[in-house]
Amino acid sequence: MSNRAAVMPEPCRIEIQDRPDPAPEPHQAVVRVEAVGVCGSDTAYYKVGRIGDYVVSGPLVLGHEAAGQVVAVGAEVTTVQVGDRVAIEPGTPCRNCRECFAGRYHLCPDLVFLATPPYDGALLEQLTIDARNLFPLPEAMSYEQGAMCEPLSVGLWGCRRAGLQPGDEVLVTGAGPVGLLAASAARALGAIAVTVTDVSEFRLDLARRLGFATERADEPSTEAFDVLLECSGAKGALAGGIRRLRPAGRAAMIGMSKEEAIALPLSQLNVNELTISLVNRYRNTWPLAIALIASGRVDVEPLITHHFGLAETERALTLGSAVPDSVKAIIHPQR
Amino acid sequence: MSNRAAVMPEPCRIEIQDRPDPAPEPHQAVVRVEAVGVCGSDTAYYKVGRIGDYVVSGPLVLGHEAAGQVVAVGAEVTTVQVGDRVAIEPGTPCRNCRECFAGRYHLCPDLVFLATPPYDGALLEQLTIDARNLFPLPEAMSYEQGAMCEPLSVGLWGCRRAGLQPGDEVLVTGAGPVGLLAASAARALGAIAVTVTDVSEFRLDLARRLGFATERADEPSTEAFDVLLECSGAKGALAGGIRRLRPAGRAAMIGMSKEEAIALPLSQLNVNELTISLVNRYRNTWPLAIALIASGRVDVEPLITHHFGLAETERALTLGSAVPDSVKAIIHPQR
Amino acid sequence: MSNRAAVMPEPCRIEIQDRPDPAPEPHQAVVRVEAVGVCGSDTAYYKVGRIGDYVVSGPLVLGHEAAGQVVAVGAEVTTVQVGDRVAIEPGTPCRNCRECFAGRYHLCPDLVFLATPPYDGALLEQLTIDARNLFPLPEAMSYEQGAMCEPLSVGLWGCRRAGLQPGDEVLVTGAGPVGLLAASAARALGAIAVTVTDVSEFRLDLARRLGFATERADEPSTEAFDVLLECSGAKGALAGGIRRLRPAGRAAMIGMSKEEAIALPLSQLNVNELTISLVNRYRNTWPLAIALIASGRVDVEPLITHHFGLAETERALTLGSAVPDSVKAIIHPQR
Amino acid sequence: MSNRAAVMPEPCRIEIQDRPDPAPEPHQAVVRVEAVGVCGSDTAYYKVGRIGDYVVSGPLVLGHEAAGQVVAVGAEVTTVQVGDRVAIEPGTPCRNCRECFAGRYHLCPDLVFLATPPYDGALLEQLTIDARNLFPLPEAMSYEQGAMCEPLSVGLWGCRRAGLQPGDEVLVTGAGPVGLLAASAARALGAIAVTVTDVSEFRLDLARRLGFATERADEPSTEAFDVLLECSGAKGALAGGIRRLRPAGRAAMIGMSKEEAIALPLSQLNVNELTISLVNRYRNTWPLAIALIASGRVDVEPLITHHFGLAETERALTLGSAVPDSVKAIIHPQR
Repeated sequence: MSNRAAVMPEPCRIEIQDRPDPAPEPHQAVVRVEAVGVCGSDTAYYKVGRIGDYVVSGPLVLGHEAAGQVVAVGAEVTTVQVGDRVAIEPGTPCRNCRECFAGRYHLCPDLVFLATPPYDGALLEQLTIDARNLFPLPEAMSYEQGAMCEPLSVGLWGCRRAGLQPGDEVLVTGAGPVGLLAASAARALGAIAVTVTDVSEFRLDLARRLGFATERADEPSTEAFDVLLECSGAKGALAGGIRRLRPAGRAAMIGMSKEEAIALPLSQLNVNELTISLVNRYRNTWPLAIALIASGRVDVEPLITHHFGLAETERALTLGSAVPDSVKAIIHPQR
Repeated sequence: MSNRAAVMPEPCRIEIQDRPDPAPEPHQAVVRVEAVGVCGSDTAYYKVGRIGDYVVSGPLVLGHEAAGQVVAVGAEVTTVQVGDRVAIEPGTPCRNCRECFAGRYHLCPDLVFLATPPYDGALLEQLTIDARNLFPLPEAMSYEQGAMCEPLSVGLWGCRRAGLQPGDEVLVTGAGPVGLLAASAARALGAIAVTVTDVSEFRLDLARRLGFATERADEPSTEAFDVLLECSGAKGALAGGIRRLRPAGRAAMIGMSKEEAIALPLSQLNVNELTISLVNRYRNTWPLAIALIASGRVDVEPLITHHFGLAETERALTLGSAVPDSVKAIIHPQR
Repeated sequence: MSNRAAVMPEPCRIEIQDRPDPAPEPHQAVVRVEAVGVCGSDTAYYKVGRIGDYVVSGPLVLGHEAAGQVVAVGAEVTTVQVGDRVAIEPGTPCRNCRECFAGRYHLCPDLVFLATPPYDGALLEQLTIDARNLFPLPEAMSYEQGAMCEPLSVGLWGCRRAGLQPGDEVLVTGAGPVGLLAASAARALGAIAVTVTDVSEFRLDLARRLGFATERADEPSTEAFDVLLECSGAKGALAGGIRRLRPAGRAAMIGMSKEEAIALPLSQLNVNELTISLVNRYRNTWPLAIALIASGRVDVEPLITHHFGLAETERALTLGSAVPDSVKAIIHPQR
Repeated sequence: MSNRAAVMPEPCRIEIQDRPDPAPEPHQAVVRVEAVGVCGSDTAYYKVGRIGDYVVSGPLVLGHEAAGQVVAVGAEVTTVQVGDRVAIEPGTPCRNCRECFAGRYHLCPDLVFLATPPYDGALLEQLTIDARNLFPLPEAMSYEQGAMCEPLSVGLWGCRRAGLQPGDEVLVTGAGPVGLLAASAARALGAIAVTVTDVSEFRLDLARRLGFATERADEPSTEAFDVLLECSGAKGALAGGIRRLRPAGRAAMIGMSKEEAIALPLSQLNVNELTISLVNRYRNTWPLAIALIASGRVDVEPLITHHFGLAETERALTLGSAVPDSVKAIIHPQR
C-alpha cells in the first residue's frame, strides 16, 4: 500500500511525496485516511506560514479534520480493530502532566496536534496515531461526516465554555463553518433560539436553510441574548456582541482574531456582570459529535460545498479566495 | 431624636442639614446609624460628581458601608426588632423582575442603592430602609466591624465570580481596602496561598501584617497563579495579572477602572483558556461576612486607620489625598 | 360566558357545577381553558383522596396540566393580553420568602399549586391565575401540546437535577407519560443514548416509535449508564437502576414511590461515588418546553391517546385501569 | 538501614518481620516512615478481616495515614528529593483509564491503595511508592500533622461532594476523627456554623474545645441545616440527619455504615428536593490539607491522643475498645 502525502515544503507550495510505510507503536493504529476537511488554520499556514506563536519552520503535512478506516493496530490496542471506520481526534496529550491529570488534557503543554508545527497532519494516505484518538463511526455515517466531527467539536466545546444552559437565547457572530456548527451545537444542547450574523448573503442564506434566525452583521438589531458565541474573528465582533448580552450573560471567544489585543467596553460589562471565556480547541467531544451527526440532530451536509483529490490540495487550500460562496472543502486522500 | 445628615448639595461641598423624622413603611425599619465607612465611590461623587453613567444631579447624602441600631420597625417587620444592632446591606431590589426572580437580585434594574444617585445614603443619624436589608450583629462585634461587611462582601462575591476553589493560589492586584478584604475573603474560602501587589510600601506592609505574601506591582515576579482578583483599577493591571495565570485560570475584575475600554492580550488568553468575570457588587453575602468577622477568620480592624464625626465628613472624604498612609476612614454619625 | 367546573365533592365522585364569574385581581388573568391533561396525581386524589401529606378535605377541582386562551386581564398585567393562546404553569409562589428570593421558587413553602389540596385546579371553563404563570404559544402549537408542557417540565427539571451533561448515556425506568417525556427531554438536552424500561409491551413499543432503545424492566441487560431517571415509582426501581450506573453516576428520582422509605445498596453507591437527587416538580421550564415542542425536538403527540369532554371527566380519571394501553388523556373543558 | 514491618499474617495477629531492602522503580521514591495514623479500617481488617468486598486473604501490612522523609528516589523523579519531609497520598491510580483521564483518578478501577487487600500499607520502616504521591511538608509541620492529611482529606472531599458553599450551616453526625476533621474542613471552607453530634461526652467535649457547637445524638434539637456530613456510620444517622435539612439541602455520606442497605424517608426528601452524595475517599486534596494545617486554619493536634512504637502496633489497633476516651493513635515505625 502506498503512502502519498501532500507536503508543504515551505509556505505557498504543496508537493505530493511518498512517505515511509507506517510502523505503529504498540498503542498506535494506522488509519487509511478517507476524508480531510480544510480549515482556516490550514490555509493560514499555507499562505503566511504561521498562526501566532506557531511558525512553520520546515516541511509540514497539513490537515487535522479527518476520518478513515483502521488498517493496522499495535499490539496493545484494544479499543479499535482493523476494518473499523473512525473519526480522528487530532490532539494526543502526554497523559501524565498536571493538566492531563486534572482532566484538562486539551491544555496539556506537550499536546501533539496534527498539522500544528512541528507536527505533521492527516493529508496523506496512511496516518499513524494513538488508537485512543480514534472513535468508531456508525454504519450510516460517511467519512465526510466523520471529518466534520472536528469543527463540530469546536462548537460543542465553545458552548460548554460559554456555560450554555438549555433554554438560553444565543447570538452567533460569523456564519463560516465554525459559526454554523457552533449554532448547530447550541441548538442541539437546548438553546431555544439561535441567531447567526455575517456580512455574506450567501452564508446567511445557508444559515437560514439550517433553520437559524439571521441578521446582517452590519445592521444589528436590538434583540438581547443570554450567550454570545463569537466565531468570526472580526475586529469589534466580541465588543459588539457583548453589548447585546442580558445581565449575567456569557460570551465565548471561538473565532481566532488577528488582533494582538482586544478592547472591551468595561462599564457595560461590569453593570451586567458578564463572563468572557476563551476557548482552546475542545476535550471529550467526539462521542457526542458522532451521536449528534448520526442522529440527524446536527446536519453537516449543507456545509460541505466542494470536494478534491489529494493532488488538488493546493486548490482546496485556496478555495476561499477563489470561490467566495464556498464553505467547507473536503480532500479525499485516496483519490 | 434629631436626624442630622451630611448632605452634598453639589460636588465638593458637604453641609450638615436637619432631615425630617423617619416614617417607616410597614416593611421598613429605622436604624440609628453608628458607623459608616468611606468608600472610593463616595470620594469620587464628592470630587467629580459622577461614576460612569451615575451622575450627581441634585443634593445627595453619601455613605453606603453602614451599621447601627434599630430604633423603630414597621408593622409587618418580623426579622429584626427595636434594639437590634445590625449591619446594613445597601441595595434594595424590586423582588419581582426577571433578575430578582432568578435569584440575581443584585442585577435588578430597579435596585435602590444607598448613595448612588439619585438615592441618598447612610451619612445621617437615622436611616429608613427595608428591614430585610438588616442583619443582626453578634454581641462581640462592633459597629465599625459591622460597617466593614460591605467592602468584605465585595471581596467575597469577587471570589465567587472568579470561581475560587479551595486550594487555589491567588494573586490580588491592589492593596487598598477592597484588595486586602478580597485577599482575606480568598483565604477564608480556602485559597492556600495569596499574594497581594501594590506600589505603596505602607499598604504592602499592612498586607504582610495580615499574613499575605506581597510583591511590588512594578517589580512582578514570575510566580504563576490559579486566580486573579484585580482590585486596583490601575491601567494594565488586568492584562498584566492574567499573563500570570496558569492554564484554566480565572480572573475577576473587581477594581473600578477609569478606562472606557480595556485591552486584553488575546493569544495568551486563548492558549490557556482563561475566563474573565466582571463583578457588580454582591448578593447574599452578609451572613457570611458577619460570621467571618465575628469568628476572627477575617480581621478588619487593621484596615480602620481613621475616625471622624458627622461634622468632619468632608475631611473623611478627602483623607486619601491628605494622608497617603490611610486605608479606611469610619464616620460616626452620632458624634 | 358560563363557568362550569368538574368538581370532586369527595373522592370517587365528580359533579359538574357552575362556578361564579371570574374576578381577576390586578396581576391576574382569566384563561378560557381548552385542554387539561390527566395526571396520575389527579387519579390518586380521585381514587384514594390523598398523596402523602396532601389530603383532600373538601370539594376539589382537579387538573393542573393546562392550556387555553386569555379572555381577561387585570389592570397591572403586561406580559399577556386578551386573545393570547397560552400554556399554564400551575404553581404560584409567594415571591418573597427565602426560597423565592434565592431563585428556588418551586420550593416556596407557600406555593399555591393547581389541584393540590386545598387549592382548586384547571378542570373548569374559566381559570383565574397570576398572569406570570402564562406563557404564549406559537401559532403552530395546539392547546393539547401546550398542556403537555407540564409533564415535559417534570422531565426537563429531572434532567437538570440529575446533572445531565450533553454526551451522557441515560437509563429511564418507566415508560409512562413522565418517563417518555423525561427520555425526550434527555435527548433534547444532548444525551447521546437513551434506554427506556417498562413491563408493558405497549409502552415499550411506543418508546421505540419515539426513537428510544428499550429493555423489559424484568429482563435487565448489563449495559452501564451515566444517568438514571427513575420515573416508574415501582418498588426496587431506584435500587435496581443505580446498580447500573458507572463511576460518578447520577440518579434523579422523578417517579412518586408509594413506599414510605426506600432501601439503597450502600457499598455499591459508595465505591462508585454516586449522587442521588430528589425532584419536586420544576422551575423556569415553560419557555424551554414550548420551544422544544414547537421546534419538533420533542414530539408529544404520540403520547396523547384519548380525548374527553368536561362531562366525561370521571371516565378520563379512570382511563388507566379501564384501558391499559392508554397513555395520556386530554380533557377539553369547552366541549 | 533495616526495614522492619508490622505484618498481619492473619486477622487478630501482628508480627514484626524484616522486609527486603527497597528497590524503587524509576518513578518511585523510598520514604522512611515516621508517623502512621491508625484508622477504623485498619482496626476492621485486624478484627474481622474484611470491609465489604475487600477481604484479607494473606499476610497484610496495615496503615495508610502516613508521613516520613525521602531517603531515595528513582531516576525519573523530579518532584521530590532525598531529605524532603513528606505527607503520603495512599492511592496510586493507573493514570490511563476513563476515570483517570476524566480527572477522577480516585475512582480508577485499578487504584493501588495502601493497606487495602491485596496491597500492603505503610506500617514499616521504609515505604516504596510513586513519587507523585508525595507532598513536601513545610518546616513547621510535624510528621504527625503530615499523617493527619489523610483523614483531613476525607473531610475536605466530603465537603466538596456535599456541594458545601461558603455561608452554609452544617450538621456533622459523629465526633470521631473523621467527623471532627470534616467539621474542621467545613469551617475552613467557609461554613458559617458547624454543629457536631455524638453520644460520647468525651468526644462532644473535644468538639467544643475545637470551637464547634454540639448536640447529643440521642437528644437532637430542631435546628435546621443546609448541609449534612454523615460521619458516624451509625444506623439511622443519615435518615435522621436529612430530616433536618432545609429545602435544597445536601447530604454527603462519609461514614462507613455496617448496613447492607439504608432506608431513606422518601416523601420528605422529595418535598425539600434534597441531594445525597456518596463519598469514596478523595482526590487532589493534599496541597490544601497541608496548607490548612500549616496555617493553623485546621488544628489536628487535639485529636492525637496516643503514641506507639512499631512493636506496639497491636495495642494501637485495639486502642478504641481498651480506652474509650481515645481519638487518634499515631504509630512511629522508627521507634
